[in-house]
Amino acid sequence: MDQVRIGIVGLGNMGSGHARYLSKGEVEGAVLTAVCDGDRQLLERVAGECGEGVAAFDDASAFLSSGLIDGVLICTPHYSHPPLAIEAFRNGLHVLIEKPAGVYTKQVREMNEAAAATDKIFGIMYNQRTNPMYRKLRELIRQGELGEIRRLNWIITDWYRPQHYYNSGGWRATWAKEGGGVLMNQAPHQLDLWQWIAGMMPTRIRAFCSFGKRRDIEVENEVTAYAEYANGATAVFITSTCETPGTNRLEVTGDRGKAVVEEGRLRFWQLDVSEPEFNRTAKESFAAPGKREIPIELEPGDGEQHIGITRDWVRAILTGSPLLAPGEEGIRGLTLANAMLLSTWTDGWAELPLDEDLFYRLLQEKIQASGAVRA
Amino acid sequence: MDQVRIGIVGLGNMGSGHARYLSKGEVEGAVLTAVCDGDRQLLERVAGECGEGVAAFDDASAFLSSGLIDGVLICTPHYSHPPLAIEAFRNGLHVLIEKPAGVYTKQVREMNEAAAATDKIFGIMYNQRTNPMYRKLRELIRQGELGEIRRLNWIITDWYRPQHYYNSGGWRATWAKEGGGVLMNQAPHQLDLWQWIAGMMPTRIRAFCSFGKRRDIEVENEVTAYAEYANGATAVFITSTCETPGTNRLEVTGDRGKAVVEEGRLRFWQLDVSEPEFNRTAKESFAAPGKREIPIELEPGDGEQHIGITRDWVRAILTGSPLLAPGEEGIRGLTLANAMLLSTWTDGWAELPLDEDLFYRLLQEKIQASGAVRA
Repeated sequence: MDQVRIGIVGLGNMGSGHARYLSKGEVEGAVLTAVCDGDRQLLERVAGECGEGVAAFDDASAFLSSGLIDGVLICTPHYSHPPLAIEAFRNGLHVLIEKPAGVYTKQVREMNEAAAATDKIFGIMYNQRTNPMYRKLRELIRQGELGEIRRLNWIITDWYRPQHYYNSGGWRATWAKEGGGVLMNQAPHQLDLWQWIAGMMPTRIRAFCSFGKRRDIEVENEVTAYAEYANGATAVFITSTCETPGTNRLEVTGDRGKAVVEEGRLRFWQLDVSEPEFNRTAKESFAAPGKREIPIELEPGDGEQHIGITRDWVRAILTGSPLLAPGEEGIRGLTLANAMLLSTWTDGWAELPLDEDLFYRLLQEKIQASGAVRA
Repeated sequence: MDQVRIGIVGLGNMGSGHARYLSKGEVEGAVLTAVCDGDRQLLERVAGECGEGVAAFDDASAFLSSGLIDGVLICTPHYSHPPLAIEAFRNGLHVLIEKPAGVYTKQVREMNEAAAATDKIFGIMYNQRTNPMYRKLRELIRQGELGEIRRLNWIITDWYRPQHYYNSGGWRATWAKEGGGVLMNQAPHQLDLWQWIAGMMPTRIRAFCSFGKRRDIEVENEVTAYAEYANGATAVFITSTCETPGTNRLEVTGDRGKAVVEEGRLRFWQLDVSEPEFNRTAKESFAAPGKREIPIELEPGDGEQHIGITRDWVRAILTGSPLLAPGEEGIRGLTLANAMLLSTWTDGWAELPLDEDLFYRLLQEKIQASGAVRA
C-alpha cells in the first residue's frame, strides 16, 4: 500500500475539521475517499466541501463495508466510538478514534480486545501528545532526570464554557448522550497526558465532582481528584469549565528534581544529590540538597496537534512505525475519569482496577434519573 | 503605662530569638525583664546573653506571678501554650503566644474564653501576616477586586526537613510532646493565612495525611486536603516536609479575577465583567470574559516578621490599636489542622464545627499507641 484511503464518520466540529485538512492533501500518503453522517444536510455540505471523489454515506454500516476505505476516523458522539471501532475492525479497517475512547471502560475494553485480535493500526486522537513541552517532560522522566516520581499536581481550569455552549447541542452535557461533562469532553487530554507523562497509574482515587455547578446541566463541570500510587506518590488533578481566568499548570516532583509546565513554558530544577541520599547523610537540621534550574530548549509552538496524530497514524499504516498515541491507551485516561465519577457517586475511594460493573450500573441509574434530554 | 515589661517563657529556637531583639531594645516601648525555662543550663546561657536586669526563673508559676512583667511571650512546646496563657491571664498579664495556639481546639477554646474574660491584649505569633504580599492579597479580596471566592489552592511543600532535624529534639514529631507534624510545626502559618486571606472557613474537609513518610517519625509529614465552603467554593491545601525542591504557590480565583502568589511575586488578573454576568449574556459557545493583568506594587521584602508581631502587640498594649494577629484567631488554623488529621484517621469527611471530643479522644489513642518517645 502506498496510499491509505480514509473515511470519516461523524462530521461535527472535529470530523469536519479532519475532513478539511485531509481533502486538501495535507497528510502525506492519505486520501479522503468517503464521509458519513446521519444528518443528511450536514453530510451534503461537508461532502460538497471535500470535492469530487469523496463518497457520502448516511449509514455507518454501509460506509464501513463499502470497500472504499482502508482506515476510518471515528468522530461520532462518545458512546458510539467502541461499537463503530469494533465494526470497523471486523471490516478489516485501520481505526483512529476521537477522544474519549468511550464513556465507560467495560465498553472500551471490548474495543481493545477487538483491536488486539486484528493486525490493523488503532490510534486515538490525543493531539496534545504532540506538544513539545509534554513530550520533553515525559522524556526527562523516562530518562530518570527527575528520579522516582513523588507528587503530581495538575490545575487545568482553563476550559471555560458559558451556558450558551451547553445549550448549543442537545447531546451536550447529558448522561444519556455525552456520558459526562468536563471529564468526558474537555479534560480527557490532560487525563491522558497525566498518566502518559508519569508512566504510571494510581492504585486508588478519591474525587469530588460538582454536577451542574453554576450551569443548567446534569453532568460534572468541576472536579478535584486526589490519587495515590503504588510507590507512595500522590497526585491532585483539578479541572473546571466554569472558572475564568483559568490556569493550566502541571507540576511533577521526583526524588531528583522538579518540573513545572505553565504559561507555555517547561521549567526544570535538578538536585545535586537525590533526596534519599541527602536525607541519609544530612548532619544539619535545616539543610536541603543544592538545586539548580536547568534551561530546557524546545521547538516553538504546540506541535502538529490533530494533523500530527493523523499523519502519525497514516505513517504507522504505511511503514509500521510505532504510534505516538495507540488506541489501546485510551482506556487509561477513561479509567481515571470513571474512577473520579465513581468516587464521587459512592462518596468513597475508587480502587483501581476499577469496579467496571458498578460504574456501568451507576451510570445507567444516572441516565434513568436524568432530566429530560434537551431537544 | 509608657513601657511594657516583657517576660519570655520557653527559651528554645523561637524564645531565644525573641529574647535577642528585645534585649537589644529593638521593640519601642518594651523592655525585657525576665526569662523562664526549666532547662537551667539553657536558662543561664540566655539570661546571661540578655544582660543585667533580666531575672531568670526555672519555674513558670513563679515567673508569671513575679510582678516583674506586664506581658509574656509563650514559646514553650505546643501543648503548654493554653495552660500557660490561662495562668498568665489570671496573673493579669498581656499574652503573646507562639504558633500553634495549641494542639487541640478544645484546649484552645478554653484559652480563648480566659482571654475574653480579661481586658488584656492577646496576640499570636503569626509573623507571616506581616508579609506585604499576603496583606495585599487579603486587601484585594476584602475590597472585592476578585469578587466572590470560588477556589483556593495552596501548594506549600518547601518545608523540607531531613531525618537529622527530627532526631535533634526528643519532643519533635511525637504525638505526646509535639502533638503532630507538619500541620503543627511548619504549616500553621499557611493554615492561618489561608483562612485569614480568604476571610472564610470551610464547612467540611477531606484530607489525606501520610505519617512518617520516608522519615522515622510517627506524625504526619505530608498532607493533601480538600475543603468545601458554604458558598460553593472549594480548596486544596498540600504540604510536605519530605519533598525538595519544594513549591510555595497560592492561587485564589474569584468570580471577578484571579491572584497567584509564587516566587516572591503577587500577580493579579481581573475580568472585564464578572463571570456570572458574562455567563448570563454570552451568545458564543467558546467565548470567555476579557481579562487583563493588573500590576501590583508592593513594598520590598517579607515585612517585619516576628519582631513586627511583637511590636504590634506592644503597640496594642500601649495605645489600644487593633492587633494584626489576635490570639483568639489561632483556633482557626488549628481547626483546619485538626480537621485534616481527623478526616485521615476516620477515612471520611471532617465536618466543621469540628467534633472536638472525637478529635481529642483519637489524639489520646495515638499518644497511647505511640512508639517510645525519643529520649
